[in-house]
Amino acid sequence: MNHIIVNDSIVPETEAHVSYNDRGYHFGDGIYEVIRIYEGSYFALDAHLDRLYASAEKLDMRIPYQKETLAARLNDYKNTEKIENGSVYVQFTRGAGARNHLYTREETPVLTGFALPDKPMQASQEKGVSVYVTPDIRWLRCDIKTINLLGNVLAKRKASDHDCAEAVLYRDEAVTEGSSSNLFLVNNETLYTHPANNLILNGITRQEIISIAKNMGIDVVEEPFPKEVLAHAEEAFITSTSIEITPVHTFKGDVVATLSVGPVTRKLQQALAEHIHTQTSASV
Amino acid sequence: MNHIIVNDSIVPETEAHVSYNDRGYHFGDGIYEVIRIYEGSYFALDAHLDRLYASAEKLDMRIPYQKETLAARLNDYKNTEKIENGSVYVQFTRGAGARNHLYTREETPVLTGFALPDKPMQASQEKGVSVYVTPDIRWLRCDIKTINLLGNVLAKRKASDHDCAEAVLYRDEAVTEGSSSNLFLVNNETLYTHPANNLILNGITRQEIISIAKNMGIDVVEEPFPKEVLAHAEEAFITSTSIEITPVHTFKGDVVATLSVGPVTRKLQQALAEHIHTQTSASV
Repeated sequence: MNHIIVNDSIVPETEAHVSYNDRGYHFGDGIYEVIRIYEGSYFALDAHLDRLYASAEKLDMRIPYQKETLAARLNDYKNTEKIENGSVYVQFTRGAGARNHLYTREETPVLTGFALPDKPMQASQEKGVSVYVTPDIRWLRCDIKTINLLGNVLAKRKASDHDCAEAVLYRDEAVTEGSSSNLFLVNNETLYTHPANNLILNGITRQEIISIAKNMGIDVVEEPFPKEVLAHAEEAFITSTSIEITPVHTFKGDVVATLSVGPVTRKLQQALAEHIHTQTSASV
Repeated sequence: MNHIIVNDSIVPETEAHVSYNDRGYHFGDGIYEVIRIYEGSYFALDAHLDRLYASAEKLDMRIPYQKETLAARLNDYKNTEKIENGSVYVQFTRGAGARNHLYTREETPVLTGFALPDKPMQASQEKGVSVYVTPDIRWLRCDIKTINLLGNVLAKRKASDHDCAEAVLYRDEAVTEGSSSNLFLVNNETLYTHPANNLILNGITRQEIISIAKNMGIDVVEEPFPKEVLAHAEEAFITSTSIEITPVHTFKGDVVATLSVGPVTRKLQQALAEHIHTQTSASV
């Protein structure tokens, strides 16, 4: 029997219901995180929880627990479900209330959380994937990790319909990010990626990679670049908590190009794996 | 005991639950309508259902009922709840599935619907309201009536925090619409409003008013205009199913101006009320 976190409780999946008038269900009025577990330990739990609380603050939502309380509940859940490798999805909505755009600040946020199985990644991390280049039609606060994800959902479906694993989005003259990942290019031993402003979600893996690269002496340029640049990249890869570092071997859609999985991507994959191992081995 | 529409059933409110893994709850992956009932009859039911089915098609979602079946269910619900005057909220999400951006096209959409009480409107329709002018940060498919409403929700809260009844949004050089209404200006006996493209929701009331105005010999110009134009309007009003025609007496925020409730607004309010009366009296 799988269990679900619902507010203060961990309940059997069959007992986990949501109110039909939860604002998450009428307005997408909520935030979330996906946190990986490697060998029985959460990876970057603090960074994910910090971002969750930051998302809440940006939406004027008050999470009714201290961060330490939430971390303890996530650890209880991991132990209850005996998760050795996998992910935990955790979400807060603003809570239930009469259906009205205007929230009152009196709502009680609703927590739900559950395990997500790992997807097989070895082949795509080794050989790379195709990505579909398409316009970014999302709102202008992509820095907040909200459940208003229709722009992402439609782009992901379009990518899949063109036999691509991911969509890569561009807005006006700037390639922003993937529909559920960040994008990096490599040219002349330098990494290029969109700056962490209101147009992208500043991925925890993105931040880890920038830090790792700098420690390895690889320059990192966080500046917008037009989609035409994609066609001339030496290497490209997408990153997220779920896919770690996955190379891109083909651009389709509004840019068409093929490229090889290169040495910088391989070095970073190796370094990230070592970093994750070190961090999760050190955890209790 | 209030009742709720859940798929094929009308159930007591206490029995209405949503699956924690409904895509509406994780992605805001759904659409909705709010339909008014006057004197026991739905107003513009066909137009609302047409738009609902159009929204579904734009999101690649298949509503599992014929329009006539859904209309019959809404009538059953109105009779069960004995609604003489009020509104019915109706929503379809894409349905439940393993949490993944990529939907499969195998999901079964989930219908929920429930009554919304009328809000008191007489004072605001008579005297007018203040509105707060602020940037439009929403996505680029505002023509689809989805439950991805965080941009609208944040604007509405900001307006209320400035003692305004509504937010009026502008994107770059164009005033688009309200956070849950359309905006019209009046100058020289001519109506001005944003064209019905991807940047606004083409309100049913908006469409009724354009039609009524043209029948009365009032010119209607559907073209974008910059926010500076707001300060020089002779009259302004906002429209929606819920607020009908509500005059604006004050702009605050990024435009500051006051104006009077004028004769064109009054003529249109009168004509809309007569049109609603005629239409709903004619219904069975």
